[in-house]
Amino acid sequence: MMSDRRPIGVFDSGVGGLTVVRALRRALPGEDIIYLGDTARVPYGTKSPRTVERYSLACLRFLLDRNVRLALVACNTASANALPALEEASPVPVIGAVVPGAESAVAASRGHIGVIGTLATVRSGAYEAAIAALAPDSKVSTLACSLLVPLAEEGWTEGEVAEAVAQRYLTELFEADPDIDTLVLGCTHYPLLAGVLTRVAARVAGREIAVVDSASAMARAATLALGDDHSTAPSAQLRCFVTDATRLDVLGPRFLGEDPGAPELVDL
Amino acid sequence: MMSDRRPIGVFDSGVGGLTVVRALRRALPGEDIIYLGDTARVPYGTKSPRTVERYSLACLRFLLDRNVRLALVACNTASANALPALEEASPVPVIGAVVPGAESAVAASRGHIGVIGTLATVRSGAYEAAIAALAPDSKVSTLACSLLVPLAEEGWTEGEVAEAVAQRYLTELFEADPDIDTLVLGCTHYPLLAGVLTRVAARVAGREIAVVDSASAMARAATLALGDDHSTAPSAQLRCFVTDATRLDVLGPRFLGEDPGAPELVDL
Repeated sequence: MMSDRRPIGVFDSGVGGLTVVRALRRALPGEDIIYLGDTARVPYGTKSPRTVERYSLACLRFLLDRNVRLALVACNTASANALPALEEASPVPVIGAVVPGAESAVAASRGHIGVIGTLATVRSGAYEAAIAALAPDSKVSTLACSLLVPLAEEGWTEGEVAEAVAQRYLTELFEADPDIDTLVLGCTHYPLLAGVLTRVAARVAGREIAVVDSASAMARAATLALGDDHSTAPSAQLRCFVTDATRLDVLGPRFLGEDPGAPELVDL
Repeated sequence: MMSDRRPIGVFDSGVGGLTVVRALRRALPGEDIIYLGDTARVPYGTKSPRTVERYSLACLRFLLDRNVRLALVACNTASANALPALEEASPVPVIGAVVPGAESAVAASRGHIGVIGTLATVRSGAYEAAIAALAPDSKVSTLACSLLVPLAEEGWTEGEVAEAVAQRYLTELFEADPDIDTLVLGCTHYPLLAGVLTRVAARVAGREIAVVDSASAMARAATLALGDDHSTAPSAQLRCFVTDATRLDVLGPRFLGEDPGAPELVDL
């Protein structure tokens, strides 16, 4: 049987979604991937649900025009605010960030889950809803952490500023529920700050805190969605598209863990 | 003689330009003002010159359609990257942020000027060019400070995080030129951080540093541009438009110093 050689599509508001591509390439090394970063309109995290939905649909259409057989919404903000609209508009399966992230959290937790993300993700209530559907007795506390995205993009992932920012946010989160045992990094940028967040969470809580992120959970969900129909081709292609030519040279390798190559500029 | 009752237009990438409106209302209390914040596409500071120019032209057209007699480009990034295109497209005078800011800096400085702003403002070289035109012997050092905009929007304008961020950026700036005597806050958001920036600059330099910003300089330039033809009407109107309904309720009063009222949502 010939395997389906159509690519997997991944979109994000910017470059952060390359953390999902990184996990995907590890889990499914034979699959061609098309990545779209909407860098002309990044960030989505401070924008309204209506605007996030409009931008997300434009990104999905771009991927569908390139004949993807599966679409991953790497951006937590887009997943939290636009997944129903994206699923309705798509003839191929759509995997968001929130449900896989919630599944990882429920698997790791003994009942108290903290979720940090952008303002739009937190305001959507999507993580609370996804966790309640999986584990109705779990308690969920959420906090918007607007400084973490620019902190990751500045590359200040360790040091005095990163410590002070993490300390301020996590103190607020653990004051809301001192029994939190699992922390969800509910934004594609946050895996770059996993070190300082894990350390400061343990310090604030006075004990170890499990830290989960949606990137690897999404890669597992994609593997399940493809079932047996995944490629074992030895050389898979990654093509990156951006809506604005900005800083992928600097930021790309940080998020992807390898050189993403020169992106192609497109207008949505 | 009837004075010209057409409004003054001000646009910005987001809500930061309300610091310019605040200075303008103080300098010209009788003038009606139309403010446009492109909150659906904020921030401009990390985007490419081509994209900044395209977005800025759309903002200008919106103001011109509302019959303004003078257009102020509150956003330093837009001023630094798009002013020639805006001037060419406008039948009414256009005042940017960079030249008034450079004039204030040259007036305050004994020859060594530091400029902090967004990545796009710093990359443009606009401040160096404007200062060189006014004072060719001045030395100019610039530094992009990407965390200051989200810091101001988070409202963390004092405290441990603000101190640590200011310390890190200003140490880097003063290492480039230890003789800096004047610091230009080259972004509409930075006046909210003027306290911590002034204090930390003095600590890093070991002496007082003059701190200037473009908001009040722009209000003076607008007053000059209008000459005698400014209104002394007792009740002037401020109308705010935004491209996305987001957080003007929280952020507006911080930047404007008064309640901007409910903004009108527009699509550019």
